[in-house]
Amino acid sequence: MENLNKQVLLVSRPQGAVTETNFSIVETALPTPGPGEALVRNEWLSLDPYMRGRMNDVKSYVPPAQLGQVMVGQTTGEVIESNHPALHPGDKVLTTLGWQLFGVAKGSELTKIDTTRAPASYYLGILGMPGITAWVGLFEVAEPKPGETVLVSAASGAVGSVVGQLAKIAGCRVVGIAGGQAKCDYVVHELGFDACIDYKSGDLLQQLRDSCPRGVDVYFENVGGAILDTVLRVMNRFSRITLCGLIADYNTSEPYGYKMIRSLLINRIKLQGIIVFDWKDRYAEALQRLGDLLAQGKLKYRESIVQGIDNAPKGFIALLSGGNFGKQLVRLA
Amino acid sequence: MENLNKQVLLVSRPQGAVTETNFSIVETALPTPGPGEALVRNEWLSLDPYMRGRMNDVKSYVPPAQLGQVMVGQTTGEVIESNHPALHPGDKVLTTLGWQLFGVAKGSELTKIDTTRAPASYYLGILGMPGITAWVGLFEVAEPKPGETVLVSAASGAVGSVVGQLAKIAGCRVVGIAGGQAKCDYVVHELGFDACIDYKSGDLLQQLRDSCPRGVDVYFENVGGAILDTVLRVMNRFSRITLCGLIADYNTSEPYGYKMIRSLLINRIKLQGIIVFDWKDRYAEALQRLGDLLAQGKLKYRESIVQGIDNAPKGFIALLSGGNFGKQLVRLA
Repeated sequence: MENLNKQVLLVSRPQGAVTETNFSIVETALPTPGPGEALVRNEWLSLDPYMRGRMNDVKSYVPPAQLGQVMVGQTTGEVIESNHPALHPGDKVLTTLGWQLFGVAKGSELTKIDTTRAPASYYLGILGMPGITAWVGLFEVAEPKPGETVLVSAASGAVGSVVGQLAKIAGCRVVGIAGGQAKCDYVVHELGFDACIDYKSGDLLQQLRDSCPRGVDVYFENVGGAILDTVLRVMNRFSRITLCGLIADYNTSEPYGYKMIRSLLINRIKLQGIIVFDWKDRYAEALQRLGDLLAQGKLKYRESIVQGIDNAPKGFIALLSGGNFGKQLVRLA
Repeated sequence: MENLNKQVLLVSRPQGAVTETNFSIVETALPTPGPGEALVRNEWLSLDPYMRGRMNDVKSYVPPAQLGQVMVGQTTGEVIESNHPALHPGDKVLTTLGWQLFGVAKGSELTKIDTTRAPASYYLGILGMPGITAWVGLFEVAEPKPGETVLVSAASGAVGSVVGQLAKIAGCRVVGIAGGQAKCDYVVHELGFDACIDYKSGDLLQQLRDSCPRGVDVYFENVGGAILDTVLRVMNRFSRITLCGLIADYNTSEPYGYKMIRSLLINRIKLQGIIVFDWKDRYAEALQRLGDLLAQGKLKYRESIVQGIDNAPKGFIALLSGGNFGKQLVRLA
């Protein structure tokens, strides 16, 4: 076992796009667990769009990441040393230890995961926050009915890929939006969406009209910006928009100016912003159902893996511009 | 009785702001009621912001007004001649006969009104579509809880004035937004709002922060544009926005570009567009309750009256720029 920890610190706040200079990678001594605590060796680090918001020093749904501190995030790892009665060396756990190779946490802040049921990394994705986000945002907020058209942006991503597959299972016509032909092929041929629009390939409005001839009843939004503004032109009466992410807005210093807000009125659209942490009372049900569907082979899942903590900043920057293909992870061990 | 009708026709569609040249006033022969129809002399014409949308030739919640035809709208009037068994000369009725002095309608399209209960004109306002809109948008969509802060734009108008008074009755802190000191004084001193912001008097954001020190839980939006974009900066977590009107957007050729959409996500806001016609199953309850409150003296109501059909276009143009003070009507007889 190494006797040094390695950490990625947030050292400056981005003005617009994130750069590698916003981070610093340092080596520190291994921490020692105190009473009730455990030392964890992180194995997988999750990279998620929400982290961009945490880099800003503004009011948001959680406090911002602090300058000079380890960048925030979820990991899975293995307990190395434990002073907590419920945790033992070798246990696999879900943590919020952030971007570092090792970390110490209270036992109560670590969640044991069952790696016989699914690979550990899945608990950062389809069986974790992204999967629950998809479940809640689709079924609790958008409430799709069989036969309706469900449109999903970032359709090959950690959340979008699950949303679309769940909507198909629910009997909907499902159309994705993704960047590039490879992702669109995957979304249609592997995930089973009815169609997928490549937003990089030209006239988005015309593509939407072609792929959604009966309009859009549910839009699950991960992206925002010009894509949302264009989708607003094809939304049906009494349609619903789950506003889950605005990744196109996160990385700009000047927010996009939305012109089609009038559609929300004319079409009596219900739009609701969601953050998964508000839905803790639905976690158990969502995870149970997602786990069952996964076990039955009814959900496909893809990971995009960056090797080593040194490459975490690069991987995150790529994620923000759509460079990932599936759930973005960093392999730490 | 005159033997000529006078009508306001829509003769061109506005490019941006409405002008008097979009209308033509013509004299025509009195129509004759056919089987099952009645001839009505209109007494009050309602002028409403939604009419601006009807002047455009675009998809909306109802078909556009047709060029060369009588401009659409609700009136109240008196039955002059009837071929319908349920209607008799002298009956007061609510109609959709539009901007004209006389009109013929099927008996089934006329609603008898009880002018012993309230003045006829009230059925175009507080006991009509605007009142029901206020009721439904507040209680069915925004669901305010006692102690919450409810913000209402166009607070002295036909809808806003009712929204605020209902929210006060429901135990909320109520803040209005209106244009000019006279309207603000009326909103606070006559309607009983806790505060009213004059959007013409300077820094709207600072005024919002001063008047809503605990943020805004419910925003009832009639206006849109820069006001909505600014209000989005003071909305609380889990707040609700009833999107009832976007009058600031109706009269521009280039829609406003909304920059604060991110607030909908960060604060998990539920925003819903409403059109009163979708809520027909709530009309009876809403009208019953509004009528009771009015009879008990618990609702104040103000009308802004233009004299004569020749002045209807001017009155409508003034309404769109906030020139009215209370529910805008045209006295036709």
